[in-house]
Parts: sequence; C-alpha cells; structure tokens
Amino acid sequence: MSDERETKITSRAGDFPQWYQDVVREGQLAEPAEVVRGCMVIKPHGYAIWEKIQRALDDMFKETGHQNVYFPLLIPESFLKKEAEHVEGFAPEVAVVTHAGGRALEEPYVIRPTSETIIGYFFARWITSHRDLPLKLNQWANVMRWEMKTRLFLRTGEFLWQEGHTAHATHDEAVAEARQMLDVYTRFAEEWMALPVLRGRKSDSERFAGAVTTYAIEGMMQDGRALQAGTSHDLGQNFGKAFDIKFQDENGATDFVWQTSWGVSTRLIGGLVMAHSDDDGLVLPPRLAPVQAVIVPIYRKEQERASVMEVGEALRNDLSRAGVATTFDTSPHARPGAKFYHWERKGVPVRLELGPRDIAAHTVQVRRRTGGDREQIAFDRLSTRVPEILAEMQREIYERALRFREANTVMLEPGAKLLETLEPGDGLPLRFVRAHWCGSAACEARVKDETRATIRCLEFDAPLDQGPCLVCGGPSRSRAVFARAY
Amino acid sequence: MSDERETKITSRAGDFPQWYQDVVREGQLAEPAEVVRGCMVIKPHGYAIWEKIQRALDDMFKETGHQNVYFPLLIPESFLKKEAEHVEGFAPEVAVVTHAGGRALEEPYVIRPTSETIIGYFFARWITSHRDLPLKLNQWANVMRWEMKTRLFLRTGEFLWQEGHTAHATHDEAVAEARQMLDVYTRFAEEWMALPVLRGRKSDSERFAGAVTTYAIEGMMQDGRALQAGTSHDLGQNFGKAFDIKFQDENGATDFVWQTSWGVSTRLIGGLVMAHSDDDGLVLPPRLAPVQAVIVPIYRKEQERASVMEVGEALRNDLSRAGVATTFDTSPHARPGAKFYHWERKGVPVRLELGPRDIAAHTVQVRRRTGGDREQIAFDRLSTRVPEILAEMQREIYERALRFREANTVMLEPGAKLLETLEPGDGLPLRFVRAHWCGSAACEARVKDETRATIRCLEFDAPLDQGPCLVCGGPSRSRAVFARAY
Repeated sequence: MSDERETKITSRAGDFPQWYQDVVREGQLAEPAEVVRGCMVIKPHGYAIWEKIQRALDDMFKETGHQNVYFPLLIPESFLKKEAEHVEGFAPEVAVVTHAGGRALEEPYVIRPTSETIIGYFFARWITSHRDLPLKLNQWANVMRWEMKTRLFLRTGEFLWQEGHTAHATHDEAVAEARQMLDVYTRFAEEWMALPVLRGRKSDSERFAGAVTTYAIEGMMQDGRALQAGTSHDLGQNFGKAFDIKFQDENGATDFVWQTSWGVSTRLIGGLVMAHSDDDGLVLPPRLAPVQAVIVPIYRKEQERASVMEVGEALRNDLSRAGVATTFDTSPHARPGAKFYHWERKGVPVRLELGPRDIAAHTVQVRRRTGGDREQIAFDRLSTRVPEILAEMQREIYERALRFREANTVMLEPGAKLLETLEPGDGLPLRFVRAHWCGSAACEARVKDETRATIRCLEFDAPLDQGPCLVCGGPSRSRAVFARAY
Repeated sequence: MSDERETKITSRAGDFPQWYQDVVREGQLAEPAEVVRGCMVIKPHGYAIWEKIQRALDDMFKETGHQNVYFPLLIPESFLKKEAEHVEGFAPEVAVVTHAGGRALEEPYVIRPTSETIIGYFFARWITSHRDLPLKLNQWANVMRWEMKTRLFLRTGEFLWQEGHTAHATHDEAVAEARQMLDVYTRFAEEWMALPVLRGRKSDSERFAGAVTTYAIEGMMQDGRALQAGTSHDLGQNFGKAFDIKFQDENGATDFVWQTSWGVSTRLIGGLVMAHSDDDGLVLPPRLAPVQAVIVPIYRKEQERASVMEVGEALRNDLSRAGVATTFDTSPHARPGAKFYHWERKGVPVRLELGPRDIAAHTVQVRRRTGGDREQIAFDRLSTRVPEILAEMQREIYERALRFREANTVMLEPGAKLLETLEPGDGLPLRFVRAHWCGSAACEARVKDETRATIRCLEFDAPLDQGPCLVCGGPSRSRAVFARAY
C-alpha cells in the first residue's frame, strides 16, 4: 500500500492528539473510513496486533471456564427498553435498521451497542434449574455506537470487542466472577500490554447503564490522561428481572439469576500507542508485537548479496525456531536506511543489521526500538539472547510506564485546588489526583463542570483516610482518583 | 443449558430436513434466533467447530501470503450501485440503516452483504503503482442477506464468513490467485472436513454478481443434494472500473487493477452435519472435532470412585499431551449411559470407558463414534493408539463420503430423462448427473423450471466428450454437473 511516504510525526510535546494520529497513520495501524461516519479501516499491522490481543485474552477466558458463542447483530428495538437505565444509556446512540429485503420492517432492529438484552432473552429460554448455572459465555463481535466525536481506536462508531456474559445462582458468585474477570484484564494489561493499571469501582454516574456495580482498570497515557482499559459489571438481577430469567434452586425455590458482563475492545490498541510510543513512532511491548525482530541485510556489491541473503535466511530460521516472530526484509526496492525507518515506525522491538563484516565476524548488530547501545551478538548466541532482550524490553516498557504514572499521580493537598493540581502547566503532563469525595453526584458533577476531570475509580486498595470532600467539605473515608480521560 | 432432554432424532430416511434440524439441536450447535428474523444463535459446540475451521483456514491464508484486515460493517447505499450486476444481485436482500444517533441519515447505509464495494473504495486510495501490487487481504466478518427461506447454518439472515480480496497487475495473475484459493478450499474440504468435492466454474446464471468467472467446490450431502462449499471469483476489472482503482505499471502506463474475491462461511458447519452425521446424531471428522476423545468413568461403589477418578485424570493428561483434545466427564449428575448418549450426539469421535475392571487390567475400552468393534487398549499404548484411531477415522469418513458420491453420480444416458435420472425414487438419494449442455441460459433455465436442478459446475477436468444438449440437442463439447442444491 502506497503509504510509505516519509511524512513527519508531530512531537508529543508539540501536539499530543496530532502525534497520536501521526503514529497510527505511520505505523499503518488504521485509517478513518470517512465515507462511513466515525468508522475506521483496521489495516494489516493494526489487525495483527488485535489478533495477538485476542489470542492472549481468549486463552485466559477459556482457562477460567468460559465458552465462545455468537448472538445476532440485530436486536429488536423493544428489547432495549426492557431495562430502564439501559435504554437511557444506549438508545441515543444506536443505529437503526428500518428496512430489509426491500420492505419496511414492522419493528425496527438496532445494531447491537452491547448484547445484554438479546442474550438475556436467550438466557431465559436456556436456564431453568440451578444445574444450568453458572452459565459462562463470551463472544468476539463488532458493535456500534453512534458517537459525536470519534478518534481512531479510542472512540469509533463501530468497534471490535469481546463481551462476556455470565449467569449465576447467587450474588456472591456473580461478584466473584466480575472481580475475577477484572483480574484477568489486569493481568493482560500489565503482563501483555505492559500497562500498569489502577483498579477499582466506578462511581454511580460512570457505571454501565443497567449495572449494579462497574469495576474498571484505568491506565495513564503519556499526556497524563486516563484510559479506561477494561470494565467488568455486576449486573445484579436487573436483566434477570427485565427478561424473566428464573431458575429453581436445590430446594425448589425460584429466583432470578445474578449476572455479569465484561468487555475490552480495539480501543486497547489506542492505549498501547499512547502509553508507549515516542516521537519516532510506534513502540510495541514485545509480547504483542506481530513482528518481534527484523533482520535488515546490508551490502553494496552484488557479490556480497548472496552470502548476506543466505546467512540472513539461516538466522531468521534460528530465531523463528526459538519462538521469535522474525521478518527478513529482503525487499530490493528500499535501502537499509529506509528499512530502518519503516520498521521503527511499525514498532518492531528488535532490529538486526547484517552486512559482510558481520558475517566475517560471525556476529550481528542488534538495536532495540527503545534505544540504548547497539549490542553485538554472536550467531550461535542469537536464539538465546534475542528472547532475553525481548523479555527485558517487556519489563522495561512496563517499568517506564509505571514510573511515569507514579511521578504524575498526587494527593490533593489540603487547601489546594483540584484544577491546578490536575493541570500543572508548563508543558507537564496532566495528573491523576487522589482526593476526598463525599460520594454525592452533585459534587462529582461540579468537579466535572469546573475541571473536565471525572472520577476514574474508587480504588480497591485505597487506604482508609478520613478527610473533607473536595467540593462540599462533607466527610469522606477514602480518596477517589480524579483525572481527565479518553 | 437445559437442552439435555432426551428428544428423538428423526431418521434420515424418514425426513431428511427434520433429521438435519434434530441433529443440529441435539448436537447443541445452534438454534434459530426467532426474534431476529432468519438469524441464529451459534451455541458453544457449534462455535467451537467454527473456531477450528477458522484456525485451519487462517493458517492456510497466511501461508499463501494474505494479511487480515477489518473494513466497516456499513456501506453507503450508493456504493452498491456502482457496479451494475452487483447491485442487481444484492440490492433486493440488504438490510438498511436509515437512522442513527437519534436522527434520520442523509444517505442510508446498507449492512454489508459482501464487501467488494467498500473495499474497492479503499483500494482506489491505496493503490497507485505496480509496487503496491499484488495486494492480498482477508477479513473474518459477519454479513447480512435478507433471505426469504432460511435454515440453520445453510442459509441465515446473518452469517459469519471470511472474505478474501486481492488486487493484481495482470489478469493472468488474478486468475492464478482465484484458482489458488479454490485449491486451498479444496484442500480444506477434503483434508479437514473429510468432504470430497467437485471443482469447476459456474455457469453465467450462477456466477457471483459482478464477477467475470466464479469458481466453486461442490460437495454431496447424504440426501444427494449438492452443497456449494466455497467460491472464488475472478472479478476482472469490473470493480476496478466502478471504483476507479488504477495503477501505473513499470513503463508508466496506467491501467485498472485485476481483482479476485473468495469466501467460505458458517454454512460449512451445515455441510459437515449433512455429509457425515447419522441417525444417532452428529458425526465429526476428528480434525474438526472440538472434543476428540471423551473418557467416561464407570463405578458403582464409592470406594471404586477414587481410583477411577485418579486413573481417568492421568489418562486425560496423557492424551492431552499427545495432542488429543480430551474431556474427562466427571459430572456427578449423569449416569454413564446418559453420558454416552450426550457425547454421541455431540459427535465426539472416540469414547473411552474406564471402570474398576479396566483399571485392574491396565486397559481401556475404546469405541468409535462411527461404529465397529470395541477396542481394548493398554494404558501405555493409549497415547500412540488414539491418535492413530483418529487418523484412521478421518480417512474412513472421507472415503465413505467419496464412495457415496461416486455411487450417486451418473452420466445422463442417451434418451434418458434428466428428472428420472436425478430422482431415482424408492427412497434412494438424489443424484449428481453429468449431462451435455449447449451453454445457453435458456436451456439451463428450462432444466431448472422442470426439475429444480441447477448446473453446479463445469468441471475443470471434464473430458472432451461431444454430444447433444439435454434440452435443445445443440452441440456440446463437455458435460455439466446437474443437481438439486442447498
């Protein structure tokens, strides 16, 4: 595809949103669909990252006893209305199918914005006894939410995601499931995405429409904004009652099931970009990099070419056998410099340069995408050393993100203003601010009005720490995390 | 899920369509969505088969140099109209989104029935030079076609599929690609699905709307009907011209690209059912079985239980390590007989029965889903013998299907009527009939009117064999395959 033009990447400091767009474009991850409002085309490199995300998460879902299924894309419009909060949350942003097969439909369908309702309908048919529980399903699907302002990966009209839906005999079990899946998301964010996250529950105003409690993980991007990177909902009996999903327990008594739902989406790719990339383009944590190492052949004369090609291919084989996803870039159209540039922008963690002198010395020059000194590695150590380097990089990228978050997370000091604490100015990133909040929606709304910050989460492990609400001065027993968010 | 009621499976001989529905229901593959017209819910066992299909095909697509991508679900209605045959073929069966975000849209969108048009739009943006070619993409997606008569998996309003889309600099290269992908589908059908297929091109009336040539593979179901199990299209420059997809060749001359598209869908699961299953339920070729072996513990007394559980778990581990997807059915709710029945209906290829006497003898009783004698296998031979049995079964299932097709494929004898040859009656299956056809659409239409048979394909390897057209008596140089089809 003809998008190898050497266009510049704006610096993060100069214009963070423009930098983000540039990195996505230059990394060939996606582009706006334009002719389909708010939607995007996910290009091969972006989709390959999504496939790695899917594979890792899907394995974790299966290990925790979930099965994949597929429910219809279309939902009868009336279904949305059965759960009062749910319709309020989603009705304004659905796309509606009114005609099909050349005729007007008697009842319109909405394109799923999420599938609690249609799944609730089937759960009611499938579940009759406690023996049918727990029922633990997941689906990988596209969903559509007609958003006003969209941004590639972060907020698009259509996006790809997984949605888990489970039903249980007791509330305790449902809560344990919702918490377990938040743990799965946490492990995925930290171990695969190299993204440290805060964990907690949402305030009522940020809750999923129809949930009793929403749990979330929140990561910090390099501009100091928060990215919600996964949510898990305790749905209580809300959908059970709306869709009449009843079961008989061991004693013959009837009750509504207790449900959960949980999801992550292609927005995670936006999170990867904003958490780790730099002014030279994409930086990928090695475990999610579709190409982990690239070998670039370097030669001047035609007689050098044959041996570089032969050795390069042998090294590619060695690395592939060692489990490293390796590309040998033999393209005759580009010079080595252009190749370096190309793979750098695609975020390939490790570059190996191989020329006649390297071959004579039986070594390769290895350079990390994240900088540092070149390393000279002997051929016979390559297949042990490169995996080590990748593991080191994975850890370093995580630690750098963690240090960044810690450096930019503060307590709201007594007497200090939230806006000034949140937004230190001078080109510094925004901050996460831990501040006392009395629990009232009015105080929360006022903060949002005045600072555009929202409560990202009420952390699970927030220490008991009495203090006055940042707005009304009323009593608070622990701090909430305030931040501007994507 | 509460669908373990012991309901009967109609016999194939009694009512084939009802048998099919029963097998799908009892195998817990899918169920009609009902509240979403013509759509279905794919249940865990059905979806697990789809995942195996996806994995196998996706590997083959990548080996042949294709990359996965994702294009939008919605297509501007006007796009469909840019290719004259395409709009004629698909406009009558699209679902239309007229409202979104609470407002009427200026231009409606259709839900993709296939993606040639939206992809054509992007190809025009991406391709400028011969260096951008070939461009070889694939997407796994849901599509929607508002069909009048639907049947689980075989024809549903929404279905899951993959659609490959490629662009090339020459027609020869595009034809080679279309043929290569038909080869991939053939290999998949025969080696994975155990389904022998006929290969050839479609007559003009059965061509994909917008293609120059459609290639297809056709399998025979147990009622003698044909199932089109994959198509690959040479699109010529039709979409290139409709979407102005031009490139400059090495000499600076400009031309439209040559394209292909190719796809298979969840209908393959319907094909698996109808090709191989029997009056006891689902039969799966081992390579596509989500569970390949099930161990059923048998014990009467509580003191026997512990050792059966311990040994069963050890055997499960042995088999899993040998690459056999194995379930140890330890459920306390069902007796062994009910378990046999359950797993039989789910098509699990191999059942291992393990009781105290087996443990004393260090052997297991092994029974194949396809019948034959029980085999007694020593513990220490299990992990080599079960994979052998699975390979034998894969081959036997293929060979049985091949013999069936050969027994029910005939030449139209001089003077014989097609209808009587096609439909031998007496409870015998329908037949594939090789008959001379002059090539005219009128003769083809007349056959369809009179017999409901269509030309399934003009086989690649049909011998030159002159004769009179079965309708008009005009000259024909090779035979076409006529059959009733799903």
